[in-house]
Amino acid sequence: MSLYDEIIKLALERNFFFPSSEIYSDAPAGFYEYGPLAVSMKNKYIEAWRRELIRRDEMVEIDGSQIMPKRVFVASGHLESFTDPITKCTVCNAIFRADKLLEEVLKLSVPERLDTKEMDRIISEHNVVCPNCKGKLDKVSKFNMMFKVNVGASGDECYLRPETCQSIFVDFLRIYKTMRKKLPFAIAQYGKSFRNEISPRQSLIRLREFYQAEIEVFFNPKKANDFQKAREYENYVLKLKPLDEDKIIAASCKESVETGLISSMLVAYYLALIQHFYQVVGIDMERFRLRQLSDEEKAFYAKEAWDVEVLTGIGWIELVACNNRTDYDLSGHSRVSGQDLSVYDDGEKIIPHIFELSMGVDRSLFCILEHSYMKESERTVLKLPPTLAPVQVAIFPLVTKDNLDKKAREVYEALRLDFDTVYDESGSIGRRYRRQDEIGTPFCVTVDYQTMEDETVTVRERDTMGQKRVPIKDLKGYLTEKLRR
Amino acid sequence: MSLYDEIIKLALERNFFFPSSEIYSDAPAGFYEYGPLAVSMKNKYIEAWRRELIRRDEMVEIDGSQIMPKRVFVASGHLESFTDPITKCTVCNAIFRADKLLEEVLKLSVPERLDTKEMDRIISEHNVVCPNCKGKLDKVSKFNMMFKVNVGASGDECYLRPETCQSIFVDFLRIYKTMRKKLPFAIAQYGKSFRNEISPRQSLIRLREFYQAEIEVFFNPKKANDFQKAREYENYVLKLKPLDEDKIIAASCKESVETGLISSMLVAYYLALIQHFYQVVGIDMERFRLRQLSDEEKAFYAKEAWDVEVLTGIGWIELVACNNRTDYDLSGHSRVSGQDLSVYDDGEKIIPHIFELSMGVDRSLFCILEHSYMKESERTVLKLPPTLAPVQVAIFPLVTKDNLDKKAREVYEALRLDFDTVYDESGSIGRRYRRQDEIGTPFCVTVDYQTMEDETVTVRERDTMGQKRVPIKDLKGYLTEKLRR
Repeated sequence: MSLYDEIIKLALERNFFFPSSEIYSDAPAGFYEYGPLAVSMKNKYIEAWRRELIRRDEMVEIDGSQIMPKRVFVASGHLESFTDPITKCTVCNAIFRADKLLEEVLKLSVPERLDTKEMDRIISEHNVVCPNCKGKLDKVSKFNMMFKVNVGASGDECYLRPETCQSIFVDFLRIYKTMRKKLPFAIAQYGKSFRNEISPRQSLIRLREFYQAEIEVFFNPKKANDFQKAREYENYVLKLKPLDEDKIIAASCKESVETGLISSMLVAYYLALIQHFYQVVGIDMERFRLRQLSDEEKAFYAKEAWDVEVLTGIGWIELVACNNRTDYDLSGHSRVSGQDLSVYDDGEKIIPHIFELSMGVDRSLFCILEHSYMKESERTVLKLPPTLAPVQVAIFPLVTKDNLDKKAREVYEALRLDFDTVYDESGSIGRRYRRQDEIGTPFCVTVDYQTMEDETVTVRERDTMGQKRVPIKDLKGYLTEKLRR
Repeated sequence: MSLYDEIIKLALERNFFFPSSEIYSDAPAGFYEYGPLAVSMKNKYIEAWRRELIRRDEMVEIDGSQIMPKRVFVASGHLESFTDPITKCTVCNAIFRADKLLEEVLKLSVPERLDTKEMDRIISEHNVVCPNCKGKLDKVSKFNMMFKVNVGASGDECYLRPETCQSIFVDFLRIYKTMRKKLPFAIAQYGKSFRNEISPRQSLIRLREFYQAEIEVFFNPKKANDFQKAREYENYVLKLKPLDEDKIIAASCKESVETGLISSMLVAYYLALIQHFYQVVGIDMERFRLRQLSDEEKAFYAKEAWDVEVLTGIGWIELVACNNRTDYDLSGHSRVSGQDLSVYDDGEKIIPHIFELSMGVDRSLFCILEHSYMKESERTVLKLPPTLAPVQVAIFPLVTKDNLDKKAREVYEALRLDFDTVYDESGSIGRRYRRQDEIGTPFCVTVDYQTMEDETVTVRERDTMGQKRVPIKDLKGYLTEKLRR
């Protein structure tokens, strides 16, 4: 079984995640539910994001509406350009993403912005047909990936946001003014975005409804190197995969800027923060890189772009797009809304530029599960950082007689409001340990006969499998200390 | 200024919440953004919900997709019945909710399920015209309040869920089986729901996109009184407003069941939990009631219904609908999906019944703000429970000279990753206290000249305005203790 399949198996068996509305056979693909374990893990992941990025950098966080009016997406360019090329089989009506179809059938690499006429030409020249029924393919057309929603009784044209950052851009001026902020400063948001993917796939990796955690840094481009906060990170070593290298190089923030690889200390600093974040949440840094994007790969508005990528069993996966979006967003919203979104920075009136860290949350969680998944001789263990573990502590009675179970329940009761705690009395102790190892529970507490004599329990650590006796009265403090970030 | 208007003013000035996409003049009503303070408060509110309900009752939590396929809403009845009666002016095209219009114009109380023909008759009989232009009103029609979304290139008919609980119902069987649960047990979910209200109003009170925190308790109706957990709550005193009383009565859980006012100990227990929750999060219990709904008010599937209501400046507001939904939901999904959703309970095959606690999160936050808002002689203070305060601690230098500001920044740096902390050096100390009082910050820490001598600071408590000197080295422990739930 591939590593990917093993994670999916674990996810389904232990209820990390599973397909949405699955009792309905015709439920569309690309929608997943988080089960109890993944809800807990996701909450902790977002808390780590808040701590390591928002609090550390003194950002502010908002939570905006997912449904936004049409003009937002006129301004952002999504209404015009957020499209995929599609072609339909004239016989069986199956619909394909034209560029992906050409790539698969002809083993070509299709540039992102190839126009539809050019694709028609390639289809005709190579006589590409429907892979399902060999039928003739229709002309390639553009399919907008936003979901339209009609609001109010008169049906005002609105859309589900395809990226959370649009809320940040339209709210920027109010936040800037009322929070008494000066440039540079960042606004963050965690929430859902929606894209009508033609071919959603690989569970959490490409969803139609997904979580993003986005950070938009507003700055004066003239001062991107005069950036006080970066001082502390000057010597932080980034793992970079530049365009003209085929391997990952280690370079400090300062060095990267001095050699011109990274455009400014501001950009280098935020790349350092995001790299540090992934280290904290359990990504193996040997399988981590910041990959520089080529002009062909970059979004059209991006001046500079780095992708956080993580190596998995199904290849390198993009977790965060780090884009220098320039003044594209605020200029666009200024123009379409008629509101002046410029601000004064040291007496100079400017439209702030934006550097963004746009994170895919679902796929990040998937990669953390994969990097934490270990097969050892006699067990499968999820070596999650303890701060991310869905269950923090499991309580077992050694046996369910002689009041050991009653005592274990008392221990459980004393902990369960303060920790994510489970009680388990079924099966052998070994089997109960395995059950917890598999979901990454960092501590298992066993009540045994000695407990009845001296009020101590054994605390077993997941990774070392080492055991230690701890007095029940000290257990809360012991666990709090061990689970501290 | 009314209390409602004062809260709105505070919300806008201090960025608790504000209208979505407001730079676009044509943005539709009924959408609000949470600013930084309310994001922080909402997160803490949800943590309290997790602690006081999910952990306390050993529920499991899921996080499901918001877009769900059509057949889910065939089964739930929403496609057929989740409608509002509307009428359109034949002259100016304005659209009105017919029942509300009749209530306003004729001062009638229109029953919830009056049919459209009957409304047409009343409109014609009383010659009701368009309140805007006096034009003739068109026939009353039914308007479905779900937002339709077309998924995939072929446009499969899906909807944004109008209530989060549908995810819980369709996921029930998988959760039940894989989490090794027995009846009774509860599944909870926090997330967005969507309703295309004809007339959204009163900011967070009636939104088109809103947060729900729903709990669905699955149980065997034959055993609703044989409910072990309820024992501890037998003497818990509920604040009930029965149908046949015009005042609030105090009755214990046990008493309420014995007199037949509440149908079972299971229902009484969950009403106790939700009442306790609102007490913890800062609702004034003198303005709280559990109101029994009449047959006319109840949802058609509900056998028994109690609304958590809270008194505000704009009247009693429903915060939680507590419904005994019987087997309506699981039977419906079984029938339409063709999946058998029954389970074995002590050898008996049953479709579980459901008791739900369906909470409106946004309006709950609004009510907490209102109940916490106090005008005292020289200040406005938000007496939020410290565990809900958006900012937990503010750090001030007494003056910005003699290194007091440098010292204060050090204190700030030492706290800011662990607490929601702000640093403020602008304006007089008094003014800085007011700024924090207004948003409910429970602790203000001032660095003064004595600090430079003995490494102590003053900690000022919001409610008493009492001050206490605390050594800097003890500050983290002191605040942790004070902010403990």
